[in-house]
Amino acid sequence: MIVAMQADATEEQINHICDRIREFGYAPHVIRGTERTVIAAVGPGDKKEHIEQLKSADGVENAFPILQPFKLVSKEVKKQKSAIRVDEITIGDGGFVVMAGPCSVEGYEQLMTTAKAVAASGAQILRGGAYKPRTSPYDFQGLAEEGLKLLAEARRQTGLKVITEVLDTEGVELVAEYADILQVGARNMQNFALLKKLGEVQKPIMLKRGLSATIKEFLLSAEYIVTHGNPNVMLCERGIRTFETATRNTLDLAAVPLLNELTHLPVIIDPSHATGKRSLVRPLAKAAVAVGADGLMTEVHPFPELAWSDGPQSLRPEEFARMMHELQPYINLRQNEMN
Amino acid sequence: MIVAMQADATEEQINHICDRIREFGYAPHVIRGTERTVIAAVGPGDKKEHIEQLKSADGVENAFPILQPFKLVSKEVKKQKSAIRVDEITIGDGGFVVMAGPCSVEGYEQLMTTAKAVAASGAQILRGGAYKPRTSPYDFQGLAEEGLKLLAEARRQTGLKVITEVLDTEGVELVAEYADILQVGARNMQNFALLKKLGEVQKPIMLKRGLSATIKEFLLSAEYIVTHGNPNVMLCERGIRTFETATRNTLDLAAVPLLNELTHLPVIIDPSHATGKRSLVRPLAKAAVAVGADGLMTEVHPFPELAWSDGPQSLRPEEFARMMHELQPYINLRQNEMN
Amino acid sequence: MIVAMQADATEEQINHICDRIREFGYAPHVIRGTERTVIAAVGPGDKKEHIEQLKSADGVENAFPILQPFKLVSKEVKKQKSAIRVDEITIGDGGFVVMAGPCSVEGYEQLMTTAKAVAASGAQILRGGAYKPRTSPYDFQGLAEEGLKLLAEARRQTGLKVITEVLDTEGVELVAEYADILQVGARNMQNFALLKKLGEVQKPIMLKRGLSATIKEFLLSAEYIVTHGNPNVMLCERGIRTFETATRNTLDLAAVPLLNELTHLPVIIDPSHATGKRSLVRPLAKAAVAVGADGLMTEVHPFPELAWSDGPQSLRPEEFARMMHELQPYINLRQNEMN
Amino acid sequence: MIVAMQADATEEQINHICDRIREFGYAPHVIRGTERTVIAAVGPGDKKEHIEQLKSADGVENAFPILQPFKLVSKEVKKQKSAIRVDEITIGDGGFVVMAGPCSVEGYEQLMTTAKAVAASGAQILRGGAYKPRTSPYDFQGLAEEGLKLLAEARRQTGLKVITEVLDTEGVELVAEYADILQVGARNMQNFALLKKLGEVQKPIMLKRGLSATIKEFLLSAEYIVTHGNPNVMLCERGIRTFETATRNTLDLAAVPLLNELTHLPVIIDPSHATGKRSLVRPLAKAAVAVGADGLMTEVHPFPELAWSDGPQSLRPEEFARMMHELQPYINLRQNEMN
Repeated sequence: MIVAMQADATEEQINHICDRIREFGYAPHVIRGTERTVIAAVGPGDKKEHIEQLKSADGVENAFPILQPFKLVSKEVKKQKSAIRVDEITIGDGGFVVMAGPCSVEGYEQLMTTAKAVAASGAQILRGGAYKPRTSPYDFQGLAEEGLKLLAEARRQTGLKVITEVLDTEGVELVAEYADILQVGARNMQNFALLKKLGEVQKPIMLKRGLSATIKEFLLSAEYIVTHGNPNVMLCERGIRTFETATRNTLDLAAVPLLNELTHLPVIIDPSHATGKRSLVRPLAKAAVAVGADGLMTEVHPFPELAWSDGPQSLRPEEFARMMHELQPYINLRQNEMN
Repeated sequence: MIVAMQADATEEQINHICDRIREFGYAPHVIRGTERTVIAAVGPGDKKEHIEQLKSADGVENAFPILQPFKLVSKEVKKQKSAIRVDEITIGDGGFVVMAGPCSVEGYEQLMTTAKAVAASGAQILRGGAYKPRTSPYDFQGLAEEGLKLLAEARRQTGLKVITEVLDTEGVELVAEYADILQVGARNMQNFALLKKLGEVQKPIMLKRGLSATIKEFLLSAEYIVTHGNPNVMLCERGIRTFETATRNTLDLAAVPLLNELTHLPVIIDPSHATGKRSLVRPLAKAAVAVGADGLMTEVHPFPELAWSDGPQSLRPEEFARMMHELQPYINLRQNEMN
Repeated sequence: MIVAMQADATEEQINHICDRIREFGYAPHVIRGTERTVIAAVGPGDKKEHIEQLKSADGVENAFPILQPFKLVSKEVKKQKSAIRVDEITIGDGGFVVMAGPCSVEGYEQLMTTAKAVAASGAQILRGGAYKPRTSPYDFQGLAEEGLKLLAEARRQTGLKVITEVLDTEGVELVAEYADILQVGARNMQNFALLKKLGEVQKPIMLKRGLSATIKEFLLSAEYIVTHGNPNVMLCERGIRTFETATRNTLDLAAVPLLNELTHLPVIIDPSHATGKRSLVRPLAKAAVAVGADGLMTEVHPFPELAWSDGPQSLRPEEFARMMHELQPYINLRQNEMN
Repeated sequence: MIVAMQADATEEQINHICDRIREFGYAPHVIRGTERTVIAAVGPGDKKEHIEQLKSADGVENAFPILQPFKLVSKEVKKQKSAIRVDEITIGDGGFVVMAGPCSVEGYEQLMTTAKAVAASGAQILRGGAYKPRTSPYDFQGLAEEGLKLLAEARRQTGLKVITEVLDTEGVELVAEYADILQVGARNMQNFALLKKLGEVQKPIMLKRGLSATIKEFLLSAEYIVTHGNPNVMLCERGIRTFETATRNTLDLAAVPLLNELTHLPVIIDPSHATGKRSLVRPLAKAAVAVGADGLMTEVHPFPELAWSDGPQSLRPEEFARMMHELQPYINLRQNEMN
């Protein structure tokens, strides 16, 4: 870590900082400039606690880490991308996996129609919310276990794998019984109790990026799950919150190649939540392939106009089919590039 | 709600929207402009579900609500500010309540020293985290129940009331046993399972604004707690996330008079987390009084340089004393204004 | 426009608003709901001035427009994309134009080497700053007219067209003498005096999106140039400012299909400034093709380590060559889609 | 500056960086950690150009400055606040200066009525726009020189000093002829050509913070004016752009004490533009005094409902009078604190 002293820091203050740095188990190097003194400390890791304590000391202007705070999810620990197995499907092996389905599970007819349609168009995983995190207490909160049962039935009928969201620690066990992949929603990305519990689960987790989470925070949340025992984590970029109101959120596609440099975890793109606009989903799905994502999550509803949630961003089955058709040459192209 | 049709919407599409609006129980009013047709719908409330469904229909360009989505917390429902009682202390009665203490409870000595100091300077409520939501899994996670016990002991010795954070649904019961006020942290503002559970608790709740939560979302999260049975909610503005990096967050003081217009719930300001910088706490505390907040939450540590968390923003006891001393004339001034 | 009255607005206040609306030349429609009254006004356009005046009246809670404020740049005015001619090159005709070159023109050798390299790899337009807008007065401010002359010389030697930035009204004439396309930088997007002057120029303009400009503001700035006489405007998305610090800015690729819905102006993507990181440029360039952009602007320097500005985001000539090589199949694929 | 090498940087790469650092005139200090090597360089200043070049070199992970890039405006250069004289008025001497008037100068009657009213209530400086930077080309652009003449006439009649905005380099001379203080608007904060020209003017400048400008960028823009010869610069915080839409912008009041630590330039608060809401101006004005600002700029209009711009945020004369009346005890209180 680096400690920058104030311009008028005293010799005593500088010595005090060196002492504290040694106490923490690092070796201090004092570098005296014409304008101020800087102390570099090298040692066992740049603990936030140590940095905060040094920042609190008299005579210190600033202190900051050199090392990245995440470890197990880092590419420095494991160079090759983690391929996550969901039975016969693999996510992160260079292919492009498509997850599709309704925002909320609304009933038998709606779910089976959607599931069959997306399966026919080539999706491999069915999405659908049984528990819905809703901004307003007056909005539809999901069918709960009944929704989970319908998802399981749709899997039986179509062979699709199932991904669905888990909202709290109390729901983990039940959701894990039914789902093939457990999803953590953006609003729960820093629900650390939930993350810890998901570390004990045997199923893969898809962690969505929080609305205002930095890449560093995103990876630290993944690190929570991994350090608690579950290495099968994939990341999902679904748009961040910015000043722009023309789209629901701002899709950060640069996060894909950046994450590919920083971590070995697979990265999924969700253009539906990112934009909130059906017509933007198809071009962004192509961009997701081109930029190097490992997969796509997108919302599909047989009648968006009757959807209980997220209708404006849901593709109709025929629109989804067209997207899948147009996506294929991009996927092939990428495959060729890798060979 | 208002539905704006596309410039080239057909008569049939317009009629279809009117039919759907009637189905929802509203009365449609078609207004034909030279450039486009707008349909206004008045009726039982502007349900998000209805708006999304209309937005999903062919020929519709946009649809949006006129009414605010929050109800029970709204000033339209209750004109007078809700005064929240914590034994003999009242929050929201026009006075100014000060909550102070360490970021984390670290041990007996640290907590008692701090509690006595802040009590002596005039604080009424002791803050201190027993469960800590930390961005990194490698950071200190709190003393858990031992921390709660120390807080209770500090209350016994000083007479201060106790506020502390609850992290998840599973912890609610235990924390409610020890604390006088339960705090929901910024990262949990949209942990809806937790909010629902807190609706069933008999103790007051302080809800912190999420890092990227709009005022509307903030009030809807409060609405969750209130609709589930607990009307004793106070709001805490603690800085929002912006592009600025010179401060930890950006304190949104305009939120105070704005919330005072929109809701009857009391509003607390936390300048410690908002800025992350000790030297900015005192001037912002004065501003909080001047702008009309109902109270202040601030971090105090006997030795910030040894704090296990948030040292750079923690006041030393003598700095806290000075702040309290300087705050008093501002509080008096405001009191005079109200009479 | 729509005017929402306060819940307790009086009959007199409602009548007053109707009178004002008629004064403005609109026809008011009063819609009385159970909770509040809404007045819809249809007429000659939703002028900001009128909306602000109505918002200022007693009894009004809010007032907002239905119509988009931009006109000439709007797709409602002209359905087909505007193809902008720069001699034999056309931008916006379905092809993909590449603009490349150094951040700053530094000297003869540097510019000619770069120009020849990017021409050899297939770029059509040479970029290079002669006037540099720099955050700090202590940074290199550009070679000024000498830089313009070098750009002209590079054009002579390579056949590349030249795009370069104009910083202020006083420089317009001189830059227009040398450049084929004049660039307005992000920090000048709302320099309205400059935009007006560029409306009188006979050469195409590339307008960069401001760091915190909404899509609506972006289009209104383009509208300034067009209403002042110059229809040859292309838009450049170059990343917006968000809370994320891992990249220099956040590239808003969803803006491309959104702009393609709203405006007939061509859209260029600049992944160099958007990310500030050389390694992210290539994947984002592919995504720019896939998402439907009309072209790319990217920084290239023979020795990034010696660049006077923007070295970390500049491609080396061989990296640029590789990018161009990899881009071609994406461009072909898109061409096939359109046929 | 600090250069962090990649984990797998070679000895050769490390030596190369040291050579470059010496070339720049700094002395390199190599610090070898278990996980990576860090090179600290101390010397003549942390030039952005040097940092970017080092970042571009092979084997380097990151490079960043230790020193702040602004100099002349920095508190390290001058401890005492700069008191700016405008004839008999002084800004920055511990007092609190109030600037008030209409958004736009609309005509004789409107301006004289407002000027007399704000003078009667105790304002010292009259604001009013003769040249208006408007997002849309269809909005009112100001009365131009006629507006300047009216401002001069209002000064004659009331004794108020005059502040007004200058939009571009070409207007500087004319505006300087009429105004006592020249204002740079938020959208022009990084119009460097304008800043340079204002460095040659003999009148004080008020520089408004850009919508998404960091504190560092804000100070560097002030540095432009000062390095070009004009030391009489005051800063104006007027709200920054965030995700929140309930207010027009987010007023960053923490910027006041932070700027008071970093710079000797006076700081003014503009709560009118910051919030866009008349009812929020009064409480925030009090907060501005409490937090340590040197003055206030606020919009006043005799009939906000007829204002050509910014009506919703303009105070009526009687509301301004009330604000001034209520502000006085806060100003007195602050005065007492300083004695």
